[in-house]
Amino acid sequence: MSVTKRYLMTPGPTPVPAEVLLTMARPIIHHRTAEFEATIAEATQGLQYIFNTQNEVLMFASSGTGAMESAIVNCFCAGDKVIVARNGKFGDREKSIAETYGLQVIDLCYEWNEVVKVADIKDTLAAHPDVRGLIVTQSETSTGVLNPIKEIAALLRDMPDTLMIVDSITGIGAMECATDDWGLDVVMTGSQKGLMLPPGLAAVSVSEKAWQATQRSTLPKFYFDWKKYRKSLQKNTTPFTPALTLIQGLNEALKLMQAEGRENIIARHSLLAEATRKGVEAIGLQLFAPPEGRGSAVTPVWSPQGIPAGKIVKLMKEGYGVTMTNGQDDYKDRIFRIGHLGYFGMFDIITALTALEMALTSLGYDFEQGASISAAETVFLQAQNEKDGEGVQ
Amino acid sequence: MSVTKRYLMTPGPTPVPAEVLLTMARPIIHHRTAEFEATIAEATQGLQYIFNTQNEVLMFASSGTGAMESAIVNCFCAGDKVIVARNGKFGDREKSIAETYGLQVIDLCYEWNEVVKVADIKDTLAAHPDVRGLIVTQSETSTGVLNPIKEIAALLRDMPDTLMIVDSITGIGAMECATDDWGLDVVMTGSQKGLMLPPGLAAVSVSEKAWQATQRSTLPKFYFDWKKYRKSLQKNTTPFTPALTLIQGLNEALKLMQAEGRENIIARHSLLAEATRKGVEAIGLQLFAPPEGRGSAVTPVWSPQGIPAGKIVKLMKEGYGVTMTNGQDDYKDRIFRIGHLGYFGMFDIITALTALEMALTSLGYDFEQGASISAAETVFLQAQNEKDGEGVQ
Repeated sequence: MSVTKRYLMTPGPTPVPAEVLLTMARPIIHHRTAEFEATIAEATQGLQYIFNTQNEVLMFASSGTGAMESAIVNCFCAGDKVIVARNGKFGDREKSIAETYGLQVIDLCYEWNEVVKVADIKDTLAAHPDVRGLIVTQSETSTGVLNPIKEIAALLRDMPDTLMIVDSITGIGAMECATDDWGLDVVMTGSQKGLMLPPGLAAVSVSEKAWQATQRSTLPKFYFDWKKYRKSLQKNTTPFTPALTLIQGLNEALKLMQAEGRENIIARHSLLAEATRKGVEAIGLQLFAPPEGRGSAVTPVWSPQGIPAGKIVKLMKEGYGVTMTNGQDDYKDRIFRIGHLGYFGMFDIITALTALEMALTSLGYDFEQGASISAAETVFLQAQNEKDGEGVQ
Repeated sequence: MSVTKRYLMTPGPTPVPAEVLLTMARPIIHHRTAEFEATIAEATQGLQYIFNTQNEVLMFASSGTGAMESAIVNCFCAGDKVIVARNGKFGDREKSIAETYGLQVIDLCYEWNEVVKVADIKDTLAAHPDVRGLIVTQSETSTGVLNPIKEIAALLRDMPDTLMIVDSITGIGAMECATDDWGLDVVMTGSQKGLMLPPGLAAVSVSEKAWQATQRSTLPKFYFDWKKYRKSLQKNTTPFTPALTLIQGLNEALKLMQAEGRENIIARHSLLAEATRKGVEAIGLQLFAPPEGRGSAVTPVWSPQGIPAGKIVKLMKEGYGVTMTNGQDDYKDRIFRIGHLGYFGMFDIITALTALEMALTSLGYDFEQGASISAAETVFLQAQNEKDGEGVQ
């Protein structure tokens, strides 16, 4: 059977809705125009809605890593002490960036299948009351592990000189990130995740406390200089040529997101993740993330004994047109990751689980075929019943 | 008459061919795949063809300014002496970036309608034999002025520790830029110019001499760290998530460019620029750029006495759907700029000139209607005759 229909199920890039793709295929306009100023204004408001914040949200033509770097170079000076709490590849990257710029990193390193512990952060803050920043990844793309940002951020409430910096690159648009209520000073995301866009656009929200920190920052910056973007944003423009088609696409994606509603988006991701988890467990597989830290963006699963994750991923892609990813670094062949972030619905999960069942059967893994589908159906039906129940009350 | 059909005639962003737009509207694929590795390899080869180089060409998800910054942070140390020869807004930006990173800038500043003088560079190099770099803009987007890169670069042939760094953001894909033959160490461009793409992708070519300079560079960098991109490029991948749809679009644009041929592209731009110049002169307008420095990407024109350039631009846009731009900074209302860079043909010039004639008539400027069209037609017919002549020899 030749494969013609393809399914992208990675934790980024994620599928882009056709209406967004086609919006980006419209004829190019100039960016120094009233028309594009309106586009920027609309995008900024929409991002504030999705980030759940009144803070300014800046947009860069870059990948998410650019936004990560922007937080370091705008908020700190060389020699500043920051805590990096890390439990995956992107936490590692935060540490590398901070070190590149000469920051003194207090390194809180966890296993990739552990959750960052609030008590550890509390102790570390007590031991280092002079830290200028605390950097944590909300949802680790490499592992799907969800860190308790709300509880961690609460520890900084009485520390006026310490910024809470959150990499929510696979969090925003999928999981709750109450930027203002939780007191998050800097939150960043990338376009190719929950925002349902191609890669190339990054966004970062900046609190008043973070703006104050920029006043003392002496690290050199130009392209990622937040002050330049803030000054331009006040006139609904950008200091450098923006990724204009992506911003036009963003507004189309934001329309879809606002129509669905922030809470409903979060609930949908939560349901899809739950169905995925119940599905893989029903066929005897083990979840990688611990129960207290399972995010809704991506579900990482231990590969069965004797079957390298790479083989499963390869077979699903080449045999059935379903693209998932295996693990990164040490977990390359030990886990595979099912992405369900952004433009995903129930039947995408059924497709993912079916492809997985077929691949596992072909690779000789013994289980009851259809069991994962049945488990997922049960999750979906239960949610439907609960919703119907609410409706008749 | 309601305006429905729109024409983008600015020096960037430039129009994107429909086949490129539609390529970028295809379903998203994952970037860590053999398929996308082939895409990167093809893009790299195509860029080498357009840059006329055997050097590695790196791609970033950023605007052109990101590529400019990358050259500074990868090639130099704080305190290094560089010459910035500038005659426009983007030369000014190069100076700002160099100063931001603590470089010692020897500032060769010209009027915006002057060409950088080879003799001045020669004298400055003699006075400062310890300069580590010479930074010049080939084609100033702000003014259309073309600087003599070939002659300037020749001065550095016997200076093994001095890099020739060229901002060819509106040069590449429109005008000759013989990277290897002229000995250019670093050449950069942005996607929204001669490459006929939306903004968001930048490319930079790096010579072996420049790679050697990166070994002593101590400026901090992460997102724009060339070494990371070089290492990844050897495996046809990127260190961070690439602007993947733009790279797919790039390959489609490169197909069009390779089919036309590098020399033919340059000849076409030269012809379109000549027709534009003859057209505006035929209705009594004065060209802004001096005869020895007229580029083919954009034609800047002095606004007639008593008519602010902004008024002409506004009327063309709102009345006829033709988007040009006025001047920047001091020249805001004194010049307007007709872009003819990238996806442009003869009849686009006729459209531009007709819109200009209509706007000028409405604004009370006295001239012979149709004269600019006649002058342009003559240029096109003459070129056609010369080509036919070649054909029958």
